[in-house]
Amino acid sequence: MSDVDGEGKPLSKKALKKLEKKEKKENEKKQKETERAAKEAAEVTEDYGTENYGKLKLNQSQERTGKTRIADINASRAGETVSIRARVYTSRSKSAKLAFFVFRQQVSTIQGVLAVNETNISKAFVKFAANVPAESIVIVEGIINKTTEAITGTTVSDAELHIKKFYVVSETIGRLPFSLEDASRSEEEFKKDEAQYSRVALETRLNSRVVDLRTLANQGIFRIQSGVCQLFREFLLSKFFIEIHTPKLLGAASEGGANVFKVQYFKGEAYLAQSPQLYKQMCICSDFERVFEIAPVFRAEDSNTHRHMTEFVGLDLEMAFEEHYHEVLEILQELLVFVFNGLKNRFSSEIEAVKKQYPSTNFEFLQKTLRLEFKDAVKLLRENNVEIEDLEDFSTEKEKTLGRLVKEKYNTDFYIVDKFPLGVRPFYTMPDPNDDKYSNSFDFFMRGQEILSGGQRVHDPVFLEERAKSNGVEISTIQPYIDSFKRGVPPHAGGGIGLERVVMLYLNLDDIRRSSLFPRDPKRLDP
Amino acid sequence: MSDVDGEGKPLSKKALKKLEKKEKKENEKKQKETERAAKEAAEVTEDYGTENYGKLKLNQSQERTGKTRIADINASRAGETVSIRARVYTSRSKSAKLAFFVFRQQVSTIQGVLAVNETNISKAFVKFAANVPAESIVIVEGIINKTTEAITGTTVSDAELHIKKFYVVSETIGRLPFSLEDASRSEEEFKKDEAQYSRVALETRLNSRVVDLRTLANQGIFRIQSGVCQLFREFLLSKFFIEIHTPKLLGAASEGGANVFKVQYFKGEAYLAQSPQLYKQMCICSDFERVFEIAPVFRAEDSNTHRHMTEFVGLDLEMAFEEHYHEVLEILQELLVFVFNGLKNRFSSEIEAVKKQYPSTNFEFLQKTLRLEFKDAVKLLRENNVEIEDLEDFSTEKEKTLGRLVKEKYNTDFYIVDKFPLGVRPFYTMPDPNDDKYSNSFDFFMRGQEILSGGQRVHDPVFLEERAKSNGVEISTIQPYIDSFKRGVPPHAGGGIGLERVVMLYLNLDDIRRSSLFPRDPKRLDP
Repeated sequence: MSDVDGEGKPLSKKALKKLEKKEKKENEKKQKETERAAKEAAEVTEDYGTENYGKLKLNQSQERTGKTRIADINASRAGETVSIRARVYTSRSKSAKLAFFVFRQQVSTIQGVLAVNETNISKAFVKFAANVPAESIVIVEGIINKTTEAITGTTVSDAELHIKKFYVVSETIGRLPFSLEDASRSEEEFKKDEAQYSRVALETRLNSRVVDLRTLANQGIFRIQSGVCQLFREFLLSKFFIEIHTPKLLGAASEGGANVFKVQYFKGEAYLAQSPQLYKQMCICSDFERVFEIAPVFRAEDSNTHRHMTEFVGLDLEMAFEEHYHEVLEILQELLVFVFNGLKNRFSSEIEAVKKQYPSTNFEFLQKTLRLEFKDAVKLLRENNVEIEDLEDFSTEKEKTLGRLVKEKYNTDFYIVDKFPLGVRPFYTMPDPNDDKYSNSFDFFMRGQEILSGGQRVHDPVFLEERAKSNGVEISTIQPYIDSFKRGVPPHAGGGIGLERVVMLYLNLDDIRRSSLFPRDPKRLDP
Repeated sequence: MSDVDGEGKPLSKKALKKLEKKEKKENEKKQKETERAAKEAAEVTEDYGTENYGKLKLNQSQERTGKTRIADINASRAGETVSIRARVYTSRSKSAKLAFFVFRQQVSTIQGVLAVNETNISKAFVKFAANVPAESIVIVEGIINKTTEAITGTTVSDAELHIKKFYVVSETIGRLPFSLEDASRSEEEFKKDEAQYSRVALETRLNSRVVDLRTLANQGIFRIQSGVCQLFREFLLSKFFIEIHTPKLLGAASEGGANVFKVQYFKGEAYLAQSPQLYKQMCICSDFERVFEIAPVFRAEDSNTHRHMTEFVGLDLEMAFEEHYHEVLEILQELLVFVFNGLKNRFSSEIEAVKKQYPSTNFEFLQKTLRLEFKDAVKLLRENNVEIEDLEDFSTEKEKTLGRLVKEKYNTDFYIVDKFPLGVRPFYTMPDPNDDKYSNSFDFFMRGQEILSGGQRVHDPVFLEERAKSNGVEISTIQPYIDSFKRGVPPHAGGGIGLERVVMLYLNLDDIRRSSLFPRDPKRLDP
């Protein structure tokens, strides 16, 4: 058996036996402890109903019954007894006889009330429950109660749970690095009273990412990220694209070798792909005609800014066209509008959850995307007193200024700049047939920052080699790439989108790390 | 502008000017050559209609008109003039006055006839067209003609094209490494007459993969591969899973450090992920509850077999369950049946195309998947005189024997073995609560080979550490992993599927490299 999900080494029989003994002993010990704790509790106060609370045995898949989702609870089900498994989000004991809880399942929360009675809820029970640390996972059984007033702090606002049973499934150990309440606090709250609250720094969050990711905003961000991928594929599959998987381990450092990670490959060396560029084009040479890929991309760039990572997810596509690269540009344009419409329609509650913590203006876009030529963009900048040369690339600053000017003039956060100067594009970019100072290439922008770069590629091998040479690219490093075009290839164009960047700019987040589950930068490889 | 799809360095202005000049010169030269070639052709024979054939200028997106797809052509459109862009698959000149062609677009082919006439098709035209090398891309204009007999060698069987115009878009340069006809030949043909045909070896194919991938079988294989991913996601999204992207660059070599690729990471080191195991579990700790990922997986295993690669695509999922890991097992089981049904219903023509070249029996599966416990599998093997210990893992040979026995007894190529011995599974596998010589883990098999490995994970941090130690795993290398479980985590289970393996076994291919676009093994990093 050579297994697939990285499962490790088997145990020797001797080690196994030893382990079995140890485990048995351990289990007996645990069982005894639980019993003792219950007994102690009973001794401290007059206790009864001890079967209704406590720590559960380790779940080893002993039994199967059934649980209710918090999202499915509402006042119409009042009187029903339900059992939920959820986290203890917050708990407050009002007295020795009364405690309030908020329980959380992903993005749903409900209030729970635990009050002493004379039959099955003792003071010891209330004390036990109130002492369960925040973020522990519990199973709670209770009766749904319709509330007289709407509850404001929870997502279930017309009902609460009158707790009857309370068991711990998985208890948090040690002090949490920060409270979920602090990590969830909105900028609005800080504005109101900066001194009262402690702000959780991004680094602190990333160091304890598994806790940080539980905030409603993060639950929203990564559902939106999943949604972008889903919408991207949905659209392209409907346009007869096929999904490809190209290698990330390469035999040669492509495109000159700058910013490439080197890998020890048995007795030799390999390099990590900086993009699927060459391979997706080879797929066009192989007659797949329309291909896309969603995969990690690696950049050994020693940049420590809010918008650089050493590993990110590329949404790439490449497409053979019949006559004009605008066939591809139009597909890309339609694709992005499809994604934006889809997010708006299918992920509105997630977007709201993110905005609650990170307020931002709505992302504005036109159903028919604004397309400027590079020349027009330069003109617009100059009209607004920005100095720029005819064939000069946009600096980050100028990009942002352009974004502001476009927003003012056209009321859109999304637009395309077409026909970039040839000199600022990579060697494989096709020159404009009418003016070879320019090229058949484009960038897409969101809120004044580039999210997609693409264009028509040179598909003639002789011309391609010529262009590579004059760009100082070592031909030997791209020989297989050039050779592919010697087997006949249709004209084609394509582009690449940075997933995290789209999510960051759509939600107007201040750092790209916030839209990556476990971000990587020159200083961070953990967790 | 920091671009996303790996575009390279800009040119200096001086280099740009120089280049412009050079290009202009080059273009003029090319134009002159084309004109001279046409003139020469006209001199050789009495030529006319020279505007109807020739090499086209480089497509730089000059104009936009419209083209027809071969798949859309049939006898009902007889008399219509259409223009197609396609590859020259084969050409035969019958005489100086008549030539036959087969044109190909992906998986569609059509016959073309070019015959001299007195107005616009000269002998020079026929000669020019017949000399265009195979695999070149051409634009052909012609009249659809209903054929009196069905044509057997092409996918369009009731119509052919009477060619009027013939232009070369992209010509193949040099000798092809093998002919597409040879590369497409079926095992059946070889059986009939082994001596007549030359077999194209796998290595030869892989060395010129962009040509090899054009065979109908390969066009089928990679559409099926794309289909598997599509069906995998479709099912899981409908079950409220979300898609995640976990890092491939890790700070520590997980699981003991064997078979891990080392990366030079600025001044330090990083390691390539052998699986998303730890990270998908952290996502469960983060309350995402149900997650999946499709991403590359790297294994530094120096195995040169037909079923090992150093990079492959993992289809991974992880899911919190309420009470029993069979909740997850059942989702996985339903998932695979959904994928197999989907392939059968949506990709039947692709499956047929592959089978034509690589004959195989249909992949048989039950709508309710057969599930054996490990003990039962051992029993079945023993009943058939295979010697095996109670707690011994299956060797590849025994796996295959089991597959054969199951097929005979239950008529299925797909089944599950549940409850593997604890000692043969990785440290993080949950022991069976009833018999801790066994575990809550399973493998899925296709045609007697494992394609999925999974199980319930130990979610208790104390017990996990204990299990890791007794398996000889260095705790310091997995500390962040263990620590995640200290923040409260629901019981969970998951599994990983090898994409290429599923495709290989579904189609019964003889080597995993045939189901990878650009396979990687210890000896191959190119193309």
